[in-house]
Amino acid sequence: MSKQTTFIPTFSLQEAQKALENNIKNLNTEGKPTDLYAPIEYIMSLGGKRMRPLLVLLGYSLYDNEWKNAVASAIVTEVFHNFTLLHDDIMDNAPIRRGQPTAHEKWDESTALLSGDLMLIKTYQWFQEAVPSDKFPLILELFNKCAIGVCEGQQFDMEFEKRNNVENEVQIEEYLEMIKLKTAVLLGFSLELGAILGGAKPFEAQQLREVGILAGIGFQLHDDILDVYADPKTFGKRVGGDITENKKTYLMLTALQKEKETGNNELQNWINKQEFNEVEKVNAITQIYNNLNIRQLTEQKMNEYFEKSYQILENLSVKHDNQKQFLKQFLMQIQERQK
Amino acid sequence: MSKQTTFIPTFSLQEAQKALENNIKNLNTEGKPTDLYAPIEYIMSLGGKRMRPLLVLLGYSLYDNEWKNAVASAIVTEVFHNFTLLHDDIMDNAPIRRGQPTAHEKWDESTALLSGDLMLIKTYQWFQEAVPSDKFPLILELFNKCAIGVCEGQQFDMEFEKRNNVENEVQIEEYLEMIKLKTAVLLGFSLELGAILGGAKPFEAQQLREVGILAGIGFQLHDDILDVYADPKTFGKRVGGDITENKKTYLMLTALQKEKETGNNELQNWINKQEFNEVEKVNAITQIYNNLNIRQLTEQKMNEYFEKSYQILENLSVKHDNQKQFLKQFLMQIQERQK
Repeated sequence: MSKQTTFIPTFSLQEAQKALENNIKNLNTEGKPTDLYAPIEYIMSLGGKRMRPLLVLLGYSLYDNEWKNAVASAIVTEVFHNFTLLHDDIMDNAPIRRGQPTAHEKWDESTALLSGDLMLIKTYQWFQEAVPSDKFPLILELFNKCAIGVCEGQQFDMEFEKRNNVENEVQIEEYLEMIKLKTAVLLGFSLELGAILGGAKPFEAQQLREVGILAGIGFQLHDDILDVYADPKTFGKRVGGDITENKKTYLMLTALQKEKETGNNELQNWINKQEFNEVEKVNAITQIYNNLNIRQLTEQKMNEYFEKSYQILENLSVKHDNQKQFLKQFLMQIQERQK
Repeated sequence: MSKQTTFIPTFSLQEAQKALENNIKNLNTEGKPTDLYAPIEYIMSLGGKRMRPLLVLLGYSLYDNEWKNAVASAIVTEVFHNFTLLHDDIMDNAPIRRGQPTAHEKWDESTALLSGDLMLIKTYQWFQEAVPSDKFPLILELFNKCAIGVCEGQQFDMEFEKRNNVENEVQIEEYLEMIKLKTAVLLGFSLELGAILGGAKPFEAQQLREVGILAGIGFQLHDDILDVYADPKTFGKRVGGDITENKKTYLMLTALQKEKETGNNELQNWINKQEFNEVEKVNAITQIYNNLNIRQLTEQKMNEYFEKSYQILENLSVKHDNQKQFLKQFLMQIQERQK
């Protein structure tokens, strides 16, 4: 495979985003009964970063310039992601998604549940329609593994919320495994899917999955940080939400470990409190984090994951080496985002 | 294709049932977190008639004697069916399934929801593993259509429950379309799947789907009858459940139509009553049905569907013509069952 050193194709993120939005708008989500189909269009239209399909296109571009060929397949990763949001919102009893009422609020829980089921089935149907038939069996196999991982991650996440005793406390390693499953494997699959569609060799596609998984764990750690330290003016959701809900984030688990080492139990006491003023709790725990240097420790961990991700990407030989910069830039945007 | 007139292979229902139960017992439903995987094994072990996988094997046997080759694929129709039960039970808020607590009662709603999602993903994974790769694309396409139909049917069913006014009353034609989607298309798909796996031509497989759909509508009409007229000693669930819940069954819709024709509104009054004694309501409405000959009218309709189903089967030329009797016997058992 010869490297193309003379022709430098440019991947325009803006152009890709536009193509994706256009394609999402034209998804055939019509059918009867109307209320079964409407939530699909609704949740897909709420926006978001479209990170997963962009990763598909970025992965594709490492091997082939015609990323437009991969748009229809790329969209399906976003459909699957939005299916998980639909069902997660039911499980979390969440009233708001991206500033709008969640589907189970706008319709009802049964309709949102069933619409989610339909969306998952549509994921398979649309993958079969979009992916070239010779590549479909492998992609289906990889997707199923990924989708199973996402379910496992969500269940771990729900179970962790109930583990508040010292005897069965969540370990940091367990947490990292959970976010890998819940969030990172789908980012990994998206990059891998793009690579396979673009013509990558199996080993290359696997390496790109690793790139996506490592960046995905970093992405979630960044989310944990932002939930405490984001600028409330630009963040879009309530800062400190994880704290009031005793969410076992990397920050909280690291702080709990530090406390244990020093024999302190200020944080544990806040967690155990049944009645509290929310603002007071958020302020107090943020102060504990500050005293223990938790933000820096989490950033350090996050940066480690991103660095590992970049390293694999750099060492990987792909067809269009000059395209790596676009993927790296995109991952760096995720690493450095402020909201 | 030569008919085998000398060798009469026998399809043993008992043997097939045994093979299916064995295979279900050996399904790999292990994984972590345990609570995510346990409901799959739980609901699969609750038993049931295993009608769908039996139809796969019966369809297969029309074309090939080695029905054991189709057992692994057949099981997947039962996995999908049980996925729908898991989610339907959440939507219907049902406490009991086959005499045992439903999964969302035994665990919790979020776990049952997520287990169902996993089960649907497993359906695809196990189909890909079980079905020969050359037949897989067609089978996946047909399955997706069937699964979408099942979701549509469930949504129609839920919506019909809310349509209690005369202005938007459910029409009998709508009801028949609903049960076709909710129940019959999966029976049709099961027969079709068996036929395809056995080596049927596309037209033959489609005809067998029709056989399954018609018998499936008949099956549901029979269910409606049994819910009112079954022997309470052997029925397994409460007789008259549909009546107390104002379910728009074929019986109720037919009776409402008859009432309308005669200007009577005794039944409509019972439906509108907010407070009532359950036994009194069941007895009164059963009496209305008796007076209007509703049982006979429903049986007549049911028998029409079964007869149409048998007719298509009889006219269809299959490879092993002598095997048709086993399929017909099986469908007649469904038609004549008392529970």
